[in-house]
Amino acid sequence: MEPPENGCADEYLFDPVILKQIDFSKHKATYKPMISPANPGESLLLRPLCLGDFDRGFLQLLSQLTKVGDISRELFKERFTSMKSCPHTYYVTVLEDTRINQVIGTATLFLEQKFIHTAATRARIEDVVVSDDYRGKQLGKLLLDVLTLLSKKLGSYKVTLDCKDKMIPFYNTFGFTKEEGNNFLQQRFKD
Amino acid sequence: MEPPENGCADEYLFDPVILKQIDFSKHKATYKPMISPANPGESLLLRPLCLGDFDRGFLQLLSQLTKVGDISRELFKERFTSMKSCPHTYYVTVLEDTRINQVIGTATLFLEQKFIHTAATRARIEDVVVSDDYRGKQLGKLLLDVLTLLSKKLGSYKVTLDCKDKMIPFYNTFGFTKEEGNNFLQQRFKD
Repeated sequence: MEPPENGCADEYLFDPVILKQIDFSKHKATYKPMISPANPGESLLLRPLCLGDFDRGFLQLLSQLTKVGDISRELFKERFTSMKSCPHTYYVTVLEDTRINQVIGTATLFLEQKFIHTAATRARIEDVVVSDDYRGKQLGKLLLDVLTLLSKKLGSYKVTLDCKDKMIPFYNTFGFTKEEGNNFLQQRFKD
Repeated sequence: MEPPENGCADEYLFDPVILKQIDFSKHKATYKPMISPANPGESLLLRPLCLGDFDRGFLQLLSQLTKVGDISRELFKERFTSMKSCPHTYYVTVLEDTRINQVIGTATLFLEQKFIHTAATRARIEDVVVSDDYRGKQLGKLLLDVLTLLSKKLGSYKVTLDCKDKMIPFYNTFGFTKEEGNNFLQQRFKD
């Protein structure tokens, strides 16, 4: 069997066709130089997370964002399988540099099913990171545009994300706004 | 077959045993008069959402919180089944007044599986509402305490929620705090 055209010869977390179906036409003009989900840059591929990304530096990339800890191949597979067993919920998307077979960017779209808003779906964007070596290539913007379009395509009534003060102007450019009087509270049990 | 002791003679969204296993001993003293998950108040029962709650005013209760829209029995069952097909994810909890067979309070604990923090689970509390007629009975506090304890018991590394300014002091009493510099951004596609 031929490996899938996007270089992932193993199992996908979600159907890659979903990414290909995104209508990016309105966004192309905002990229200089022009890149797109189909052509994110030289030797780069945008695709769903694959099981084999354990060996493509996916976890090392996440460690540029926050604490990842010691994740064995078995634990990675277990978590991957567990996410996949939840239909229409986890859309962990990656950018791979096919020259070095390394994942160099990732962002997660995560869907919550609700009863409110006529049994609507709420989307969240989580764990966005682009490798230090690949900054300035509009890849963070590409990941955000793709996942925002995907959340809308999948029927979400809204998409949200948490971010630090300094990132607000960046996310504002994608249409994300801070709703005055709406707050984000948390309590931590572990680091 | 005997109906389950908690009055739900039909299908549960999640295993009710999980609620019974919560260690509430440290919290009891903070309730005056004393109530608990096992004894939330006269004729009241705390339990998982049931399929039959479509006929127990569950959606009408949610409409006190926000827009619910027109949800048919079929759509309700479809959403319920879809949530249930996602293992270890949806913990929609309700309070039923068994005298009138009506759901009079609800809150949702919703779990996100991650790769970061050693493949941790992040918990969110959503859609908390207690019927106007049942205010002042510590039921909102009970729902929040139960779901916060549940999120910890289920191994979450943190639990978060979104709220309006005026609700911050209420949530502070449960240990939820606003992390300075951490923001909540959104964009809406539909009402």
